[in-house]
Amino acid sequence: MASERDRDATAPVSAASSGKEPRTARGRRTLRAILDAAAAEFGEKGFHEGSISGITRRAGVALGSFYTYFDSKDDVFRALVRDMSGQVRDHVAPGIRSAPDQLAAERAGLLHFIEFVRDHKEIYRIIDEAEFVDPESFRLHYVSTAERIQARIQAAAERGEVRDGMSEVHAWAIMGMNVFLGLRYGVWDDSITPDIVADAAADLLTNGIGPKD
Amino acid sequence: MASERDRDATAPVSAASSGKEPRTARGRRTLRAILDAAAAEFGEKGFHEGSISGITRRAGVALGSFYTYFDSKDDVFRALVRDMSGQVRDHVAPGIRSAPDQLAAERAGLLHFIEFVRDHKEIYRIIDEAEFVDPESFRLHYVSTAERIQARIQAAAERGEVRDGMSEVHAWAIMGMNVFLGLRYGVWDDSITPDIVADAAADLLTNGIGPKD
Repeated sequence: MASERDRDATAPVSAASSGKEPRTARGRRTLRAILDAAAAEFGEKGFHEGSISGITRRAGVALGSFYTYFDSKDDVFRALVRDMSGQVRDHVAPGIRSAPDQLAAERAGLLHFIEFVRDHKEIYRIIDEAEFVDPESFRLHYVSTAERIQARIQAAAERGEVRDGMSEVHAWAIMGMNVFLGLRYGVWDDSITPDIVADAAADLLTNGIGPKD
Repeated sequence: MASERDRDATAPVSAASSGKEPRTARGRRTLRAILDAAAAEFGEKGFHEGSISGITRRAGVALGSFYTYFDSKDDVFRALVRDMSGQVRDHVAPGIRSAPDQLAAERAGLLHFIEFVRDHKEIYRIIDEAEFVDPESFRLHYVSTAERIQARIQAAAERGEVRDGMSEVHAWAIMGMNVFLGLRYGVWDDSITPDIVADAAADLLTNGIGPKD
């Protein structure tokens, strides 16, 4: 987990409440510490039981620092959902980009997603709770993820790396596969090597499960 | 929606709290009315804002009738999650059983699932909220659904209707596809004919998206 967090040592300026964006690298590091503490607080206690004082205690910052960047508990939760959505995207992107073709890219995307989830098990609880606490962020997370998948498989179809006819339905199907495999083999049980899960899913995605003719 | 509810005019005896199982057909109809009212109440207001009095008002039964069958709001919510899980299973089963082969069965399962969701849009909110309110029922719903899928695709592999090597990973991948396609094309937007979604998903599942050789 430390390695992940180290890589993301600063937070995006846009994570703060409107008008409260950090202006310095130090401010962005404090914002990052608050967001990581919020992930731990809401991941452990949920939104309703989680508190701003719990977040500042975990982050080791004063209450005033919290209000330097956020207006409310709702605001930091909303920022956290978008931040985690972005962290997933950024974590899986290099493996997807460096794969030799799109089917290998989809396999790499799932592999790195499962690895990310194992290091950030709180992500499901937080994004799933957004369905109730902040439905707009919940919807945005999935719509934007599906749009990214659709764009990359349609581009791959044009390159001949996957077959023609890739649609929004395919993108949502792939996303759903990945979300549930991440829940099952990332959050609930991490005893199975992620490569085994990624291999089986990639085989399904590449060849389907129809009988060999 | 009425047609769905009419088909399920009575509730399973086991839905009531322990020791409070209905003994008569009339009792099972009252239990059914309470569960349907609970689906409407929790689907609209969520668990925390939903109330027992809201449920009995919607069901048109006295408060005493509620306590004839349930001990608490937690109990009726737990019963509701298991009831909806069973309703989905029962709704998709006939289409799966009557399909000519397993790939057609999987397509029928998704098609009827999307249709069910369009008539019971509250199901996602209720089962998703169970992750927080009643984690055991949440896990049981998905574990038992995946076990059913795994059992049927492994049996189909033995009959040669799908290829060999079907595993738990395949079952979770198929379930994830269906859950997200149900959310996207059942709950969020029901303007697309379910057959179109089912066709695209069945094609993905049967043939994969690998380039034609």
